[in-house]
Amino acid sequence: MKPDPANPQPTDFQSVPKAVVGRLSLYLRELQHLTRDGIETTNSKHLGILLGVTPSQVRKDLAYFGQFGYPGIGYRCSELIGAIKQIMGTDAVWSVALIGIGNLGRALLRYKGFNRQGFRIVAAFDADPNLVGQTVEGVDVYAMDILTETVKQQNIRLAAIAVPAEASQQVADMLIDSGVEGILNFAPVMLSLPDTIQAVGVDLAMELEQLAFTVVNNRKND
Amino acid sequence: MKPDPANPQPTDFQSVPKAVVGRLSLYLRELQHLTRDGIETTNSKHLGILLGVTPSQVRKDLAYFGQFGYPGIGYRCSELIGAIKQIMGTDAVWSVALIGIGNLGRALLRYKGFNRQGFRIVAAFDADPNLVGQTVEGVDVYAMDILTETVKQQNIRLAAIAVPAEASQQVADMLIDSGVEGILNFAPVMLSLPDTIQAVGVDLAMELEQLAFTVVNNRKND
Repeated sequence: MKPDPANPQPTDFQSVPKAVVGRLSLYLRELQHLTRDGIETTNSKHLGILLGVTPSQVRKDLAYFGQFGYPGIGYRCSELIGAIKQIMGTDAVWSVALIGIGNLGRALLRYKGFNRQGFRIVAAFDADPNLVGQTVEGVDVYAMDILTETVKQQNIRLAAIAVPAEASQQVADMLIDSGVEGILNFAPVMLSLPDTIQAVGVDLAMELEQLAFTVVNNRKND
Repeated sequence: MKPDPANPQPTDFQSVPKAVVGRLSLYLRELQHLTRDGIETTNSKHLGILLGVTPSQVRKDLAYFGQFGYPGIGYRCSELIGAIKQIMGTDAVWSVALIGIGNLGRALLRYKGFNRQGFRIVAAFDADPNLVGQTVEGVDVYAMDILTETVKQQNIRLAAIAVPAEASQQVADMLIDSGVEGILNFAPVMLSLPDTIQAVGVDLAMELEQLAFTVVNNRKND
């Protein structure tokens, strides 16, 4: 039976290589750009050029998640966008808690890409009593001592930590108690977390390293 | 002839898969953590556990760049750190120009990870005349109209764009004229650049997507 590409069956994606999941976000972005430009269909060759990978790599990547192409047509952009969003879990909006309203926290509150991709920062927390009770970029700032209960009450599943490095583990411990399922950590430290909580660390220097490598090796970045 | 691991020969790394280059940064971080903790040697099994990949993947990744292990010892951490930094081009300090001193720009100026990994923001630029002439986090803020000449004069090879999306291409065009070799783009748009300039786009929503995927699929993040 051919799987319905607009409605992929729930499958065990735990064994999908991390790099493939990373490219899934890139395919999604390119498809979103294509539909914004009024382009309705594409194919593995075109997507491959956009991402700097081979057409067969595109087909292999997508094959982990289902069968999405149509003979003689290729991929229907909006359909593949829907399928990828469902696979990524971003077909519904995620509520996100933000901890730390310094410069980085404020930049994150202003960052339009989150809303566009299905993430809404619904509550912010800071240790500074002068900030508590304020509204920053439309988001209420709460005191740290109600972090755990607020996250529980609002069923917030993801949190972004944008506090100084030395405070990040303490914040993580509070988030563990709150039942949060995933943490995006901007602090340049490894957090100690139970296996039940997923974490992604954002290391901005790593992006500069990758850039330095491509410059030094005069390598077309893909 | 066995290559000297402390002094890898200049090689053509253009064909190295991007994912491998990405892991090189991760190996570097783990090795830096190990030496900070006083650990002098490690091996592919241990590094594999730290990164969530197999020992053979670790050996295969590093084999792209040279031969670094010693029989019965494994890898000497500080030596492998030096080799990776040389491969990445971060054994010398890179001067970086920052364009845009909003919240994100300020967060980047405060971000300690850059200095630690060999990147120094030496000049900042902003269109706001109230900011020009100021010093933010020890870095002088210049007017946009001297961007090109300043970058040329100071031989700055990398630039980070932290301006609003609608201004980013214009800034990129100025940077192209300045002779910059690599651009780290925080604006959520694709830049149109000549092939001679490398670019890395930072899409913060992509990190949240990856987190959502791991949460939805209850997948231990590696």
